[in-house]
Amino acid sequence: MPRSYAHLQRLFVQAALAPDAELTLGKDQSLYLAAVLRKSVGDDVVLFNGRDGAWLCRLIGDSKKAVHLRVVEQIAPQTPVSDLWYGFAPLKSERLDYVIQKAVEMGAGLIQPIMTEYTQVHRLKGERMTANAIEAAEQCEVLSVPHIVPETTLSRLLAGWTAEHGDRRLIFADEGEASASPIETLKALEGQRVGLLIGPEGGFSPEERENLRAQPYVVPISLGPRILRADTAAVAALACIQATIGDWR
Amino acid sequence: MPRSYAHLQRLFVQAALAPDAELTLGKDQSLYLAAVLRKSVGDDVVLFNGRDGAWLCRLIGDSKKAVHLRVVEQIAPQTPVSDLWYGFAPLKSERLDYVIQKAVEMGAGLIQPIMTEYTQVHRLKGERMTANAIEAAEQCEVLSVPHIVPETTLSRLLAGWTAEHGDRRLIFADEGEASASPIETLKALEGQRVGLLIGPEGGFSPEERENLRAQPYVVPISLGPRILRADTAAVAALACIQATIGDWR
Repeated sequence: MPRSYAHLQRLFVQAALAPDAELTLGKDQSLYLAAVLRKSVGDDVVLFNGRDGAWLCRLIGDSKKAVHLRVVEQIAPQTPVSDLWYGFAPLKSERLDYVIQKAVEMGAGLIQPIMTEYTQVHRLKGERMTANAIEAAEQCEVLSVPHIVPETTLSRLLAGWTAEHGDRRLIFADEGEASASPIETLKALEGQRVGLLIGPEGGFSPEERENLRAQPYVVPISLGPRILRADTAAVAALACIQATIGDWR
Repeated sequence: MPRSYAHLQRLFVQAALAPDAELTLGKDQSLYLAAVLRKSVGDDVVLFNGRDGAWLCRLIGDSKKAVHLRVVEQIAPQTPVSDLWYGFAPLKSERLDYVIQKAVEMGAGLIQPIMTEYTQVHRLKGERMTANAIEAAEQCEVLSVPHIVPETTLSRLLAGWTAEHGDRRLIFADEGEASASPIETLKALEGQRVGLLIGPEGGFSPEERENLRAQPYVVPISLGPRILRADTAAVAALACIQATIGDWR
């Protein structure tokens, strides 16, 4: 996108976006634009809905309860939904928010929370995760908000993997894997559909790790000689995947 | 390190560590071990000092003001200080803590805060940064705590680069670089000493970017088609560097 739009506030909406369409924002977004950001009639924002690309829109009504906008023009075409599957063991509160944001920035297409033996979070707030994904998409100029699916357990995931995911390979950051660059391992997956699995703080249990390594579709990778926190491992592994077989090329 | 020590608390100390040495912790660490973690005589911890490797140590006195320990045995040899130079524009409060922690986990050897045109932080707390680096090393089983040097400005850094850093190449994540995998670019640096430069939120100014790109030792890389937050870009770029020419191989 040209730099000239980079300073504009971006908002995710459900409404269809097309030339000259008019729409009214809900109360939270209206309050945010009109009261927090003090936008008024004539000001521009960028709207996107995950389907129609990014659109320059202009305020034609600045009520703090219902901001009214007219769609001006498309400034970026819709990008396709990423095919990258991302499964992770939920972390606590802020770190969970953070992991969701990073997954969006790094181009995950589908986000799957997974309960494992050492996972210390037992109740997930789906709405909070979705709100975090949308906020990250707004801030990072991502036009497809990843879909966050309901939690599952690692054993259910593995038992149903082939039936649900076909020939998709499942990359997992294995602390027990001999330290070797993940680059060559990932390059060998060129052209295949992949997913990434990140364990909780403390890693997978010995039984879980054995189960993972026994699956023919699982690809263990090493993330170097140091212990990484789960959120660091997620960004690091996603970077290696995107740079070798993903959309950074 | 064998898994059997992974559950033990790790602490960074200044004292020399050698077989049968005895030492007394300062008041903060003593309070933490004796009061917060409720360690008592006979309990084990792991100490490291950045010079002598990691040592299993046993409490022989559990006063909350001055925990007394005897060194039992070395459990990991000292790792060399990383040669990876890491320069970054400081972010605000928690995000700054986070960036320091991530740099330690990802194996930076020297951390250089750099003031740039769009940097929004103007006063840095050196002690807080050092405390964060030590905490990250304790948690991530890193035995060399990176050295955090006093802040400089981007223009001073570039003006003095060759005099101070010799033939070290300076990799920078350039949002304006055409989207292409960083892997091939990084591989071409095999065998050379490198540094990584990460800009502030909002990136480098056009003049700064021009200045950077004009330097013969500067290597621009792309981190894909999405806008990344500065802290995400740091972990992603460090992962690509370590995986291609660093210590993940």
